[in-house]
Amino acid sequence: MITLASDFGPPYPAAMRGVVRRRTDAELLDVSHDLPRGDVRAGAFWLRFLLPEFPPAVHCAVVDPGVGTDRAAVVVRAGDHAVVAPDNGLAIPAARRLAAGRRGGPVDAPTEDDPGIAVFAIDAPEPDSATFHGRDVFAPAAADVHDAGVDDLAAVDRIAPAEDYVDLSLPTATVDRNAAGEPVSAVGEVMVIDTFGNVITNVPGAVLDGVESVEVNGERVPVGETFADVDRGERLVTVGSHGYVECDVNDGRGDERFGLGSRSPIQLVF
Amino acid sequence: MITLASDFGPPYPAAMRGVVRRRTDAELLDVSHDLPRGDVRAGAFWLRFLLPEFPPAVHCAVVDPGVGTDRAAVVVRAGDHAVVAPDNGLAIPAARRLAAGRRGGPVDAPTEDDPGIAVFAIDAPEPDSATFHGRDVFAPAAADVHDAGVDDLAAVDRIAPAEDYVDLSLPTATVDRNAAGEPVSAVGEVMVIDTFGNVITNVPGAVLDGVESVEVNGERVPVGETFADVDRGERLVTVGSHGYVECDVNDGRGDERFGLGSRSPIQLVF
Amino acid sequence: MITLASDFGPPYPAAMRGVVRRRTDAELLDVSHDLPRGDVRAGAFWLRFLLPEFPPAVHCAVVDPGVGTDRAAVVVRAGDHAVVAPDNGLAIPAARRLAAGRRGGPVDAPTEDDPGIAVFAIDAPEPDSATFHGRDVFAPAAADVHDAGVDDLAAVDRIAPAEDYVDLSLPTATVDRNAAGEPVSAVGEVMVIDTFGNVITNVPGAVLDGVESVEVNGERVPVGETFADVDRGERLVTVGSHGYVECDVNDGRGDERFGLGSRSPIQLVF
Repeated sequence: MITLASDFGPPYPAAMRGVVRRRTDAELLDVSHDLPRGDVRAGAFWLRFLLPEFPPAVHCAVVDPGVGTDRAAVVVRAGDHAVVAPDNGLAIPAARRLAAGRRGGPVDAPTEDDPGIAVFAIDAPEPDSATFHGRDVFAPAAADVHDAGVDDLAAVDRIAPAEDYVDLSLPTATVDRNAAGEPVSAVGEVMVIDTFGNVITNVPGAVLDGVESVEVNGERVPVGETFADVDRGERLVTVGSHGYVECDVNDGRGDERFGLGSRSPIQLVF
Repeated sequence: MITLASDFGPPYPAAMRGVVRRRTDAELLDVSHDLPRGDVRAGAFWLRFLLPEFPPAVHCAVVDPGVGTDRAAVVVRAGDHAVVAPDNGLAIPAARRLAAGRRGGPVDAPTEDDPGIAVFAIDAPEPDSATFHGRDVFAPAAADVHDAGVDDLAAVDRIAPAEDYVDLSLPTATVDRNAAGEPVSAVGEVMVIDTFGNVITNVPGAVLDGVESVEVNGERVPVGETFADVDRGERLVTVGSHGYVECDVNDGRGDERFGLGSRSPIQLVF
Repeated sequence: MITLASDFGPPYPAAMRGVVRRRTDAELLDVSHDLPRGDVRAGAFWLRFLLPEFPPAVHCAVVDPGVGTDRAAVVVRAGDHAVVAPDNGLAIPAARRLAAGRRGGPVDAPTEDDPGIAVFAIDAPEPDSATFHGRDVFAPAAADVHDAGVDDLAAVDRIAPAEDYVDLSLPTATVDRNAAGEPVSAVGEVMVIDTFGNVITNVPGAVLDGVESVEVNGERVPVGETFADVDRGERLVTVGSHGYVECDVNDGRGDERFGLGSRSPIQLVF
């Protein structure tokens, strides 16, 4: 199976599907082609959230503001999975989680003893274009990696262990606790806004255990288990499906009502 | 085959695809993930229109403003099909039509002698999240139902006949006729606006047979067989592909030109 | 394999998927359902760009402002491919390229000695609707053509060689060269704007070889190999992945910054 993810929007992903299908009969499933445009960090967040839901697969992921420059292309082996991506860090947080065999739940800074990921460089032939490496570089590499098998990457022409690669760690929040271990405050930031307008932060959801309300950047907001815990149109803070604190509105847009955007700082006071 | 429908927009449906694929090799086809957000009635309309186009399948459909509350999850068996959905009525109109083996054409209130649907309750284990039951409840249930087979739902763990369920009947229009049986007027409402801006009502299209123009909420508009029957930019009333009266503009948006939105009342005078 | 392309947006393509799957087990892959709405020429441009990326397939393509009129439906055989489409020219540029076995790169007016395309008329039974021939005419025909095989179209009921069909040639640019063969100026037009806001013209990219800057409609703009050759927010002219001159902004919208839209005239002075 090969999954496809990008920030291309329609209709460019069709070219990737065709290129893959010319080379292999592997099943094709879309992750999304509406990842936040040009935002490697947000793409890395979504991939870390979504790719572990799939069974072992080759994932072809492209958010690539440096397309056409001399940034390299990589294949990251992570357990039974492989992620083919530009060498800009996009694949790394997802690969670390895939290698650890974990699915949902908040994460955690990478630790030294995480099961390893292995990064390979793709020595692609001269691409047909300088602006569409999704078609010219990544899709062909994903097909080749799929057919060679994740355990036999060295057998793929033009793939060799990378001497170096761009690492990426998603930022982690700081939680201050009192002597009893209860959270007093947390400082983090907004990772992504989803299409509902839900504001997804990097503060691990466990800080909300047993908490009835919390100050978000100075304003007290009720904590709910789900949207329906507040009236329609009202704000709430909850734990999202990725395990992090979200700032939401029941049947409305949290980003607008909280005045928050991607990378906004978040301070929670309990 | 498993079809997926939701109001999630990107990228959440990827998690549903992955969860299904971890459990079964069934073919995956998308219905749409852009159903009108949080609008159970509109979702039910679209599902009733679209699901009967498919051969026998398990349909996983999620429009779920009550996610995380104690609303139940159901599997509705309808002929050779099954629809897995929240217990909010979303699946019922489509299931009734699937059970009747009918495809297009306007519908009709459910009748007492419709072939039965059978509703089963899903006793899901504690979901990982309170806000993404598409991933945590409905996708796993759809995979399990698929592999057990629609005729053997009772064999699926944690699925049992529902003692009760939320019914939903889409509203029907009232047509007044004269002594000769010709329509004099019709009163209904707008069911959905499609992405073209076409205004889809619940008035059965047959009322337009042999009619050259009709008053829509007080303004006379020509009746056409298709868009090209009026000049570009002009309004028309026609019978849509679902069999209902539509208020459209040739190469334009009917909702804007008629001033109509979802649930607007419609009065037609012939 | 059957590919699906349309300008329908969600959720109508689901009906096409279902109709095809009721008739055949062929793999289904989406090209895009967000082709520019009602714009046959733009749809033809995108199909010519995208369909040659696929291995031999039956392509079902619908951009059909004349739906419900007496415009015919056609199957165009092109090498090992077939394109099922309304008879409005939509399929022709892609079919010519498929027949020639060419993929990317700028094209060229059709020439007399191009390998032939063969156009067949579909004598569809009375469709269920006057407004959704994607479901009622084109999807069933694509399934039938797939199962009969592209080489045996005459064996398909209701398909016969067309006596006549609507041809479509995409406009070509004019390039003036000096005695040394270097381009002095080029006059063309905008073919499509993509979702990034990139302005894709019909001027073949080769005119930019060795050129450092060019006047676009009177304003001098740097020529780059890729976006990163200019600062973020700056304009550039480059060769797109389809082989034509594009007017772009690094991390921004070219259409807005150049003030260009679909069909805008373009004059380049070197």
